[in-house]
Amino acid sequence: MEIAFEKSGGLVPAIIQDDASSEVLMLGFMNAESFALTQRTGEVVFFSRSRNKIWKKGESSGHVLQVRDIRIDCDADALLIRVHPLGSGVCHEGYRSCFYRELNADGTAAVIADRTLAPESVYATENPAAKKESR
Amino acid sequence: MEIAFEKSGGLVPAIIQDDASSEVLMLGFMNAESFALTQRTGEVVFFSRSRNKIWKKGESSGHVLQVRDIRIDCDADALLIRVHPLGSGVCHEGYRSCFYRELNADGTAAVIADRTLAPESVYATENPAAKKESR
Repeated sequence: MEIAFEKSGGLVPAIIQDDASSEVLMLGFMNAESFALTQRTGEVVFFSRSRNKIWKKGESSGHVLQVRDIRIDCDADALLIRVHPLGSGVCHEGYRSCFYRELNADGTAAVIADRTLAPESVYATENPAAKKESR
Repeated sequence: MEIAFEKSGGLVPAIIQDDASSEVLMLGFMNAESFALTQRTGEVVFFSRSRNKIWKKGESSGHVLQVRDIRIDCDADALLIRVHPLGSGVCHEGYRSCFYRELNADGTAAVIADRTLAPESVYATENPAAKKESR
């Protein structure tokens, strides 16, 4: 089973779904190395497009994503990773899921979730630039 | 609310989740035009990377995805679209979800779902090349 990394310039999207609640928590990208690390360690490792490097989810926050199973789609260019998330939320904005806003027909967005953690308590030791991803 | 299309060369990934069962059905990509069509018509329209054109899901199969709501992630470069899917499966391989295989630690894949439709009954009038996507 070959994952089609080359089809998208070396990266495939990985959907992260809570194995218990089925909530979609976030989407990240993986290259071959981060995928291999994810599979070997049982904890999700992405490739950060903005920082152009391997990025273990939870490396600063402790909010590690423990892998339950990994699924692959029909044309082998997308992954669905079901996880047990450590901590009360994956999003650096303080929500359980990064998908905490709904888009309205008029182009505005409405927050539809409650904050489950205080972002500053998790990322306090980092510089502002580092806060741009849900580390 | 601006969607960050330019960040990924004009395309953002759109996760399609069954609104009733919470099952993740597929992942496609959208450009600004296909997103606008999706929002305006209430039915999912992707941009096909392989065919380099707008692609309405269900245009040949009738398996249209009716939009329930559209969510956007914290950095505005991924969409989560919750849908009511028409028909018994979204995948051209005959499954309810395109994520019908689980990856094992040894690199092999195991089918973990039952077929819910016969692919040839849906795509019989198309040529084989057209079968490569879940149209």
